[in-house]
Amino acid sequence: MMNKGRLEAFSDGVFAIAITLLVLELKVPDVKGAGDAGLGAALLALWPDYLVYAVSFATIGIMWLNHHALFQNLTTVSYALLVCNLLLLLAVCFLPYPTLVLGRYGPTGTTVLFYGVVLVLISLSYRALYYAARPPTGVSGIVGYLTQWNAWLSVGLIGYVIAIALGWYAPIASIGIFAAVAVFYALPSSVKAALQRARNDT
Amino acid sequence: MMNKGRLEAFSDGVFAIAITLLVLELKVPDVKGAGDAGLGAALLALWPDYLVYAVSFATIGIMWLNHHALFQNLTTVSYALLVCNLLLLLAVCFLPYPTLVLGRYGPTGTTVLFYGVVLVLISLSYRALYYAARPPTGVSGIVGYLTQWNAWLSVGLIGYVIAIALGWYAPIASIGIFAAVAVFYALPSSVKAALQRARNDT
Amino acid sequence: MMNKGRLEAFSDGVFAIAITLLVLELKVPDVKGAGDAGLGAALLALWPDYLVYAVSFATIGIMWLNHHALFQNLTTVSYALLVCNLLLLLAVCFLPYPTLVLGRYGPTGTTVLFYGVVLVLISLSYRALYYAARPPTGVSGIVGYLTQWNAWLSVGLIGYVIAIALGWYAPIASIGIFAAVAVFYALPSSVKAALQRARNDT
Amino acid sequence: MMNKGRLEAFSDGVFAIAITLLVLELKVPDVKGAGDAGLGAALLALWPDYLVYAVSFATIGIMWLNHHALFQNLTTVSYALLVCNLLLLLAVCFLPYPTLVLGRYGPTGTTVLFYGVVLVLISLSYRALYYAARPPTGVSGIVGYLTQWNAWLSVGLIGYVIAIALGWYAPIASIGIFAAVAVFYALPSSVKAALQRARNDT
Repeated sequence: MMNKGRLEAFSDGVFAIAITLLVLELKVPDVKGAGDAGLGAALLALWPDYLVYAVSFATIGIMWLNHHALFQNLTTVSYALLVCNLLLLLAVCFLPYPTLVLGRYGPTGTTVLFYGVVLVLISLSYRALYYAARPPTGVSGIVGYLTQWNAWLSVGLIGYVIAIALGWYAPIASIGIFAAVAVFYALPSSVKAALQRARNDT
Repeated sequence: MMNKGRLEAFSDGVFAIAITLLVLELKVPDVKGAGDAGLGAALLALWPDYLVYAVSFATIGIMWLNHHALFQNLTTVSYALLVCNLLLLLAVCFLPYPTLVLGRYGPTGTTVLFYGVVLVLISLSYRALYYAARPPTGVSGIVGYLTQWNAWLSVGLIGYVIAIALGWYAPIASIGIFAAVAVFYALPSSVKAALQRARNDT
Repeated sequence: MMNKGRLEAFSDGVFAIAITLLVLELKVPDVKGAGDAGLGAALLALWPDYLVYAVSFATIGIMWLNHHALFQNLTTVSYALLVCNLLLLLAVCFLPYPTLVLGRYGPTGTTVLFYGVVLVLISLSYRALYYAARPPTGVSGIVGYLTQWNAWLSVGLIGYVIAIALGWYAPIASIGIFAAVAVFYALPSSVKAALQRARNDT
Repeated sequence: MMNKGRLEAFSDGVFAIAITLLVLELKVPDVKGAGDAGLGAALLALWPDYLVYAVSFATIGIMWLNHHALFQNLTTVSYALLVCNLLLLLAVCFLPYPTLVLGRYGPTGTTVLFYGVVLVLISLSYRALYYAARPPTGVSGIVGYLTQWNAWLSVGLIGYVIAIALGWYAPIASIGIFAAVAVFYALPSSVKAALQRARNDT
């Protein structure tokens, strides 16, 4: 129905831009008059911003990698795939905003909730895309794809929900969980499994 | 006359960037001191911004899809096509600005008018591009292409004009119409028709 | 020496991004409290910004078009070409900044000078790139390429210098000249000549 | 294991965006009321910003060039290469931020240190990527790649460390060293050597 190459090129472009735009959300500390040491201290005090930047960067980078694996052996582009792909890009493009809110207000119940909800949306739309690319027997439609169980995909989802709940008690720990999920999907075994699955399933 | 591939690549790049830049227009609420609940309320109160963000995202996404369908079977790149394509990109690249104005001042007669006029310009330049890609017999020149009647293309145009007029009485309803037009062009029947037309007409 | 395709892809990306970033330089008028009519008047009063936006957009778009024509039949990528290409991209990427200054302070001797100097730099680095792509007999080196005479390339250069000089007396007229140069290079005859030249000369 | 083409396309996109975003970090001087001459003086006084902009632009441009040379003859994409590439992109995408800090606060011990540390990170992750692309006999793992000695790669590293140390005494001289390193890697001999090496080693 549609040329896979141009869909990949468009998606690659969006991933590349979203990942690069994250840096625009870092603001320069306003400490004119505090001297050079004051500026140094202010820059060091922004470490949660840098951490959240790195987590968002890793999340989008890994999402790109898995997107690539998913499209590797794809032969046809269905309407459902097209829509799921746009939903995934919508959520990925939105991520810089909760990243900015989290950086500006620091980790709190609200900022962790906002950031986590967008990660959950990314995770869900990736799940729908995943099954739209290789529809399981007897399942069709975006709702059907969303409700398919998959252990590997659910690690992220479950991690995000725990992080959100934890946000009301220990928001710093939530950031640690977000980072841990990114590291999990970046482990050699995860990456190799994703690339392998893409090769075998289709 | 010109290599189609590089024109597509350049256009894809512009679409991908314009769609990703939209998020930069969302500003963090300034509620330091209002506490975590105050921040949550402020983020929720921004729902019209999120809605307009989603409508602009969908509009550009669908425009990309139709652009792709149009170029699918194209064999030659004429001068008129080149100019119409640049005009379309100009209007698409400008869309983040009225999106920002609409988000900042909320839906009013003026902001809906501004947003709607840019949508009308996008719609008109797409119409010109559409006929520049497949010139109807006996018609040539950008003005000729613009004044060709086409029911499918006109749904958006008519919707936008109604939304603009309605903006002076019920601006929230205008946003609904903008969203409805995006949904209409994203329906399976519209997308399939567009892709089919691209395959048959040329 | 180097793969032409990836140089084109990188340049296309930079052109696409620079042209799309221009919109970020447009700022929303700050007229909260002035009512809806006040907002409309404020948006209309920004017309010089929109005009400069369109001129910068057209300038980068045409530069992309000519860049494409230049690379069409290129077979080898020399070191001089690589360096000239990076210089051109440097100047093109910088253009949003004088565009912003011109928009913010309106047309004055200083803002027109700043904007014009960057256009002159774009024009000169394109000239160097032009001859680096097809070195004339007996000429080599970036300085040699820069000092080659070419009537078609010089229209822009001469227009820009006149516009800069005029900026101290009638800065609005300068904007008109900048726009006229863009229109000149976008005329069918210019575009066709550029594309033809690219095909014949090599 | 993975398609090299899409990895190159994604990396090219990120390089192109990072290099173009640099201009967004330049802020318009706020001198309303100082008259046209005052604006001119304010724009001239920003010369350190322009210089740092050019150094960052050159650094990313040269990094792109070497990245291209490295991937030229690559046949397989290993897991280590994938991770090193993401680390390099992370550091390159971050560069606009210290560029902005350096521009805003001028060259001081702290701003030079911050900028220099990010350059060191870029240099180190490029070194890891370099050896991940062509693993030397008996060496494997990112730590192994990082600790391999290479004179050509170390010129930058040593230059950056000297510039950082010098920053506490003569920060302007540090900027000169950063620029000199960029010029060194842009010299015909460096570029040709890099391209040649890419062709021979694999």
